Amino acid sequence: MEQDKQFAVGIDIGGTTTKFGIVNRSGEILWQDRIPSNAHEGVDDFMDDLAAKLKPMIEQVGLNNFAGIGIGAPNGNFYTGTIEYAPNLKWKGIIPIADLMHKKFGLPTKLTNDANAAAQGEMIYGCTKDCKHFITITLGTGVGSGIVIDGKIVLGHDGFAGELGHTIIRPGGRLHKSTKMRGSLEAYASATGVRETAIELLTAHPEEESLLRNYSINELTSETVYECAMLGDNVANRIFDFTGQILGESLANFVMFSSPEVIVLFGGLTKAGDLLMKPTRKHMEANLLPIFQNKVRLIYSELKEADAAILGASALIW
Amino acid sequence: MEQDKQFAVGIDIGGTTTKFGIVNRSGEILWQDRIPSNAHEGVDDFMDDLAAKLKPMIEQVGLNNFAGIGIGAPNGNFYTGTIEYAPNLKWKGIIPIADLMHKKFGLPTKLTNDANAAAQGEMIYGCTKDCKHFITITLGTGVGSGIVIDGKIVLGHDGFAGELGHTIIRPGGRLHKSTKMRGSLEAYASATGVRETAIELLTAHPEEESLLRNYSINELTSETVYECAMLGDNVANRIFDFTGQILGESLANFVMFSSPEVIVLFGGLTKAGDLLMKPTRKHMEANLLPIFQNKVRLIYSELKEADAAILGASALIW
Repeated sequence: MEQDKQFAVGIDIGGTTTKFGIVNRSGEILWQDRIPSNAHEGVDDFMDDLAAKLKPMIEQVGLNNFAGIGIGAPNGNFYTGTIEYAPNLKWKGIIPIADLMHKKFGLPTKLTNDANAAAQGEMIYGCTKDCKHFITITLGTGVGSGIVIDGKIVLGHDGFAGELGHTIIRPGGRLHKSTKMRGSLEAYASATGVRETAIELLTAHPEEESLLRNYSINELTSETVYECAMLGDNVANRIFDFTGQILGESLANFVMFSSPEVIVLFGGLTKAGDLLMKPTRKHMEANLLPIFQNKVRLIYSELKEADAAILGASALIW
Repeated sequence: MEQDKQFAVGIDIGGTTTKFGIVNRSGEILWQDRIPSNAHEGVDDFMDDLAAKLKPMIEQVGLNNFAGIGIGAPNGNFYTGTIEYAPNLKWKGIIPIADLMHKKFGLPTKLTNDANAAAQGEMIYGCTKDCKHFITITLGTGVGSGIVIDGKIVLGHDGFAGELGHTIIRPGGRLHKSTKMRGSLEAYASATGVRETAIELLTAHPEEESLLRNYSINELTSETVYECAMLGDNVANRIFDFTGQILGESLANFVMFSSPEVIVLFGGLTKAGDLLMKPTRKHMEANLLPIFQNKVRLIYSELKEADAAILGASALIW
């Protein structure tokens, strides 16, 4: 009986690190570890590294006690179980990762993209437990998204739905280096985007004093901008206002698409707290039709970020 | 037995005209008629006008042979059966239209917004019969939309999802007169928008000759622009190129949201044929991530426009 199997493995494959853990049905991570994602050119060597750490733990708990393995990965396709042309992974082309895992560990395996895994985790363990219509946005190095409608992740006809980070919000605007698109949400409302906005503002107003000028270009990160903003630096504060404006405008467009009850923000940029939340909420509301205004709960995820990825992946199995 | 009931009434309430008809399960309209929507200030007088024409027909076919009444109306809410603050109807506030119809005709009644009704009609009688993931966009006086995911119309948590005409594609751009928003899709890719683009282009380039200058400002419509474009007029052609660019960019954003298999365009502007389709397709593809390119079928609806509204509304009942 599936119900007897009390454990699942959650694996989150990221651009640099792969995190994995053993999770029970209450969403407790009983054990976790990590390996580099990019230590090898080939996926087989990666699988060997993973097995070396994960297999002993699975055997200790007992293979029969596991319901399966859930994986979140960039460009992971739920329908096919394959990672397809992920720009930030070393393995190129189409990788049948669900199949490889199944063969390696002898457990049923499900795959989805990393942002959908986060949405799945939110739905089962996070602040959207009783909510059937919501969107999660991960504001990290890039911008990921998971869309839930009627309690189901939106996959689209081919499994690739929910690439909201690549929607265009400033046509003809800032160049996104890896996609070569102009003006996408990700070009602005990511850690990379915040850094670029900082460089743009500092260059555009060379006469304006700013604590940010104490850092070299290489040291300018979303964290430095945050720290300077907290010290009252004007330029740093304007950087978050602008980031929130772009994000808020985009969120308004998403609300008019699927009318969610909640939007949950995840990821590194959310550490900026109200510095980001206030302008985002303001510009979202300002760009909504009246029938949508003051209805959407815009919140930060309450899941611990490192755990969210593993929990979300494991949640594919229940 | 529901299955025994071979007929449904479809009612499409528009800003100026209300069309209604009796439809069978094969999607044939056996009889249809229309009344003005705006002849009276009060909805009760409207209901009397409607009943005067529709009731005799229902009685002739036999009340017991009807499965129900389906209504499409601006701001119609499927969940509540009410029309809520429709800006282009005379009846203000919240109108319990499904309830009023039910009492007047003694038949089960379902309501949805007019654009969702069109999507429903497409799904049952149109070019998306076997398709579970598609979006319909109505390019008329305004821009309406219906989104279908996994074979179901997306309603959102409150019944108002799918207002894609009001998504912002040119932040800070053209003012939309009734919503007071700037840069929404509807401000550009509607009949009204085409007319505004014409006025803008003619004003911006006073030295450039154009057949459009033979018309008074009042005579400039999307139809005149179409006629001049077909005669090879440069300005008129650029107006459709620009309209298609805005529409194509917006469609790319929608594709990256729900990854539909098909996008179906409806409404008066589609009479422009390739003049509009070519730039729209070009700019949609140019703004898609590679994983979405050359996958989406972008087509004009094959349903006769006047029929589509009645069919779509009646399709709510089956």
